[in-house]
Amino acid sequence: MVEPLSLEQLIAEFSGLPGIGNKTARRLAYHLLSRPKEQSVRFSESLLRAVNRVKPCKECFAFTEEETCFICKMRSDSKTICVVEKSSDILPFEKSSVYQGLYFVLGGVLSPLDGVGPDALHIPLLIQRIKTGDVQEVILALGSSPEAESTALLIDRLLEQTPVKRSRLARGIPMGSDLEFVDEITMLRAFEGRVLF
Amino acid sequence: MVEPLSLEQLIAEFSGLPGIGNKTARRLAYHLLSRPKEQSVRFSESLLRAVNRVKPCKECFAFTEEETCFICKMRSDSKTICVVEKSSDILPFEKSSVYQGLYFVLGGVLSPLDGVGPDALHIPLLIQRIKTGDVQEVILALGSSPEAESTALLIDRLLEQTPVKRSRLARGIPMGSDLEFVDEITMLRAFEGRVLF
Repeated sequence: MVEPLSLEQLIAEFSGLPGIGNKTARRLAYHLLSRPKEQSVRFSESLLRAVNRVKPCKECFAFTEEETCFICKMRSDSKTICVVEKSSDILPFEKSSVYQGLYFVLGGVLSPLDGVGPDALHIPLLIQRIKTGDVQEVILALGSSPEAESTALLIDRLLEQTPVKRSRLARGIPMGSDLEFVDEITMLRAFEGRVLF
Repeated sequence: MVEPLSLEQLIAEFSGLPGIGNKTARRLAYHLLSRPKEQSVRFSESLLRAVNRVKPCKECFAFTEEETCFICKMRSDSKTICVVEKSSDILPFEKSSVYQGLYFVLGGVLSPLDGVGPDALHIPLLIQRIKTGDVQEVILALGSSPEAESTALLIDRLLEQTPVKRSRLARGIPMGSDLEFVDEITMLRAFEGRVLF
């Protein structure tokens, strides 16, 4: 009982976050109790406000405070949908401003061992939207784990009978990376996908 | 405006924590909004509860939910005070169970450049308590930065006229560390303080 109970509980809450070990959790909790009280109250309120306000967009399931997210509203004319696993995957596209179309957040990837089948994700809704809407291209941007790959394959297969163009992101050497440290699979993909000058 | 405002604010709050960069802050905020809502509400409440309940012990300034902390209550007979910089420094002593005495949290170390003089810390209270109480030994456990060293020196000097025994923790090679990677100052201290078999 060296530490007060409420402090112990706060440390436990921090330990439950991804990538936060016990020592970091303790450091953060002590920090929050050491700084001026109003700052930490504001932190707590900020979390509660975000939890209460942020919800999935009814069109694309990206995080939003409205019924329909900013992108779905602004780009409702777009005929391209980029399918991502989670809401935070949208940011890198928007940062590079390479893409001006719509998104669709699947909410995960297939994981039979964890009981995540197609119906646990938003796959049926995605297929329905593509089949009934005016979609011309679907970009499957789902990561490179085996689960993500099989999710992309499933969606590709479900759309086989439609005229919709399906694509996925190129695999290859990331910018700024040293060839010496590139893993085998990435090298294989980069070699297979090599581009003529 | 890709991210909802409340989410952006939550990310900013996380970025303000020590050791949490922008990417980690974003990852944690998205995680808190992706898991079941009641879990994140509980996190927020847990923080607010700790902030509202935890306060400095009126004897030693360690974090506690009571007026007087557990250690001050249980060991009120002890005649030894271990002086630490912050409340979280108490845990390693208690874990090793090497020490069964009282603590005193200074609340920082002297830092003239930041305007932290003796009166901004609890040094006057510490001196008063030692001079008026029944204290036999003061262990200055204040870290090894120049600021911490000069804080320890000041306290040592203020107690010079008293019969109280003053000591500080031994400096040396930490357990399990490879000699090859020991820094010069640690090596100097370990050599100077070498112990006869």
